[in-house]
Amino acid sequence: MDFKVTPWEVEGEVDYDKLIKEFGTSPLTDTILNRIEKITGEIHPFLRRKIFFSHRDFDWILDMYEKGTPFAIYTGRGPSGHTHLGHMMPWIFCSYLQKTFDATMYFQITDDEKFMHRRDLSLEQTRIYAYDNALDFIAQGFDPEKTFVFTDIDYAKTLYSIAVKIAKNVTFSTVKAVFGFKNSTNIGMIFFPAIQAAPCFLPSELEKRKAPVVIPAAIDQDPYWRITRDVAEKLGYYKPAAIHNIFLPSLEGPSGKMSASLEESAIFSVDTPQDVKKKVMNAFTGGRETKEEQQNLGGNPDVCTVYQYYYFMFEPRDDALLERKEACTSGEILCGHCKKELAHRITAYLTEHQKKREKARDMLDQFLLKD
Amino acid sequence: MDFKVTPWEVEGEVDYDKLIKEFGTSPLTDTILNRIEKITGEIHPFLRRKIFFSHRDFDWILDMYEKGTPFAIYTGRGPSGHTHLGHMMPWIFCSYLQKTFDATMYFQITDDEKFMHRRDLSLEQTRIYAYDNALDFIAQGFDPEKTFVFTDIDYAKTLYSIAVKIAKNVTFSTVKAVFGFKNSTNIGMIFFPAIQAAPCFLPSELEKRKAPVVIPAAIDQDPYWRITRDVAEKLGYYKPAAIHNIFLPSLEGPSGKMSASLEESAIFSVDTPQDVKKKVMNAFTGGRETKEEQQNLGGNPDVCTVYQYYYFMFEPRDDALLERKEACTSGEILCGHCKKELAHRITAYLTEHQKKREKARDMLDQFLLKD
Repeated sequence: MDFKVTPWEVEGEVDYDKLIKEFGTSPLTDTILNRIEKITGEIHPFLRRKIFFSHRDFDWILDMYEKGTPFAIYTGRGPSGHTHLGHMMPWIFCSYLQKTFDATMYFQITDDEKFMHRRDLSLEQTRIYAYDNALDFIAQGFDPEKTFVFTDIDYAKTLYSIAVKIAKNVTFSTVKAVFGFKNSTNIGMIFFPAIQAAPCFLPSELEKRKAPVVIPAAIDQDPYWRITRDVAEKLGYYKPAAIHNIFLPSLEGPSGKMSASLEESAIFSVDTPQDVKKKVMNAFTGGRETKEEQQNLGGNPDVCTVYQYYYFMFEPRDDALLERKEACTSGEILCGHCKKELAHRITAYLTEHQKKREKARDMLDQFLLKD
Repeated sequence: MDFKVTPWEVEGEVDYDKLIKEFGTSPLTDTILNRIEKITGEIHPFLRRKIFFSHRDFDWILDMYEKGTPFAIYTGRGPSGHTHLGHMMPWIFCSYLQKTFDATMYFQITDDEKFMHRRDLSLEQTRIYAYDNALDFIAQGFDPEKTFVFTDIDYAKTLYSIAVKIAKNVTFSTVKAVFGFKNSTNIGMIFFPAIQAAPCFLPSELEKRKAPVVIPAAIDQDPYWRITRDVAEKLGYYKPAAIHNIFLPSLEGPSGKMSASLEESAIFSVDTPQDVKKKVMNAFTGGRETKEEQQNLGGNPDVCTVYQYYYFMFEPRDDALLERKEACTSGEILCGHCKKELAHRITAYLTEHQKKREKARDMLDQFLLKD
């Protein structure tokens, strides 16, 4: 395989069809999308555009919902830096799911994991990022009555009591095979899959019912759910369902995901209009070497990160997106034009987001679960 | 080696001198015992009789004490069943240390570990044993103002926040080498050494000072302290000191330690006088086949578990112990006599202990640390 996808590393140009086979997940078929549309009367652009492209048992989640059993949503964040747009995509989707299906929402912030994984990060640093990242999550408009946010360190008592039950049933062989852990891996990281699995069973514990749970998250997190699903029934819980999104590409090129560690490759939630403009104007595009070539031959949106940004988040209208694509391939518009417009849209989005983010500061306590 | 000592298994007849070499600890020399006697004016029978026989940095603990820096004591219990006399020996010694050196005392109950290690135990069962075992500890007469008792599950928030710092610095290779963990070991047990190490640094966290800590415990627990000592200074704490006791022998023979899983091999804190009598009368002795042989040849106290019980706990007076030994080797007394007397002494001890144990029930809350 010429690419690699683990929770800590994405390398190369990801072939998502291959990943579905390798991970053993199912493609999100039109049948399922039609069911969602039938139930809810709409279909989110992330679904329509196959940005969420794969799943485990999402059809069962819909079965349960139609039978009147509400589901819970679980996702999370590893607080190793500022939040970027790639992190926010699943949260936007979670917010849509909560509103549409009236679901409870659980958000885990893995301050422990990032500290143990990254030699350069102190626990204090990951905890500062944790509570800062939480603002970006809350800013998506979650219902404080039905949404629960926690960091592993501050909610360790509850999480650990669930995690030990999971851990008892998972061997080093298993995490070695699933995550590629080595003998040189530290024992905190080896245990951590049990901590990340624990919130899959938290809705059952807190809502005092056997609760169906669906996890919207980027596909790199799926190995955790594979392990969790293997132990769930033994412990008396439902297997968690999952719905997976592809990665928002790096602005520096079509391979890999945006990375919080590469400043220039990603748009962060706290970026200024100047930051945005600079990053977008320097983005990798499918444009030609010269204006003349572009006008004669047209650009190539398939490899263009600017086009990808419109596709993923900044042009939800299908007809307008198609128009833009045609204007590009026909050589009608130049990259500069497209970039300027994208920078404008991202800035408008972030200005709004940053306001909500500040409001979230005062609401944080309403969302927090602590022991 | 024809014996094996790990925190979960003691097999064969333990050669304690070899163990000191294998574990890399130091023998508890007369020089150190003389220092203790000089400082405190007395010498506990456990020390005089080399039941505590090995240490790490106990001389440094005395240095600190003499310089006016008080130390903290840490020990613990894995709650897989009822408490037996072998468990209580280090606690009796802790109680002596607390009284003599005016030290704070921390007592960890590893309900998580016993649950994760033992396939047949539920978390609920280990938690019931945990709070029951705590009574036997408190019954030793600890000062509620300076003594802190916690179970890993109920104190997980505090412990986990320390454990992640330890875990970050310990690899699977290390725990594999130190504890013999395998690829088939569950990830909870692999992480657990970080949880057992955490209370070594708890006095520093709670007492807001860089606190010297000494751990009185049976020698089988030493591998944990080896790992802890390796990371301590990197995290800004003192290396914990340790003082190790040998095992109270099984009533069924001279090899191995008393086992909570073998009912007949041990005297439990909750045993009735009938239980005690039955177990002692069936104990393995150094007696001869017949009364005549015994009277002519004398018994062999060196292999006699009944004699060992006098030696460890039930004849603190050296002269009386010597008298008993001589009466045995000269054939003056018979095993039945010695057993009857021992059963009587154990029953008297347990009757008293069981009263204190019941009183401890009402005092438990004064000792408990919970998050």
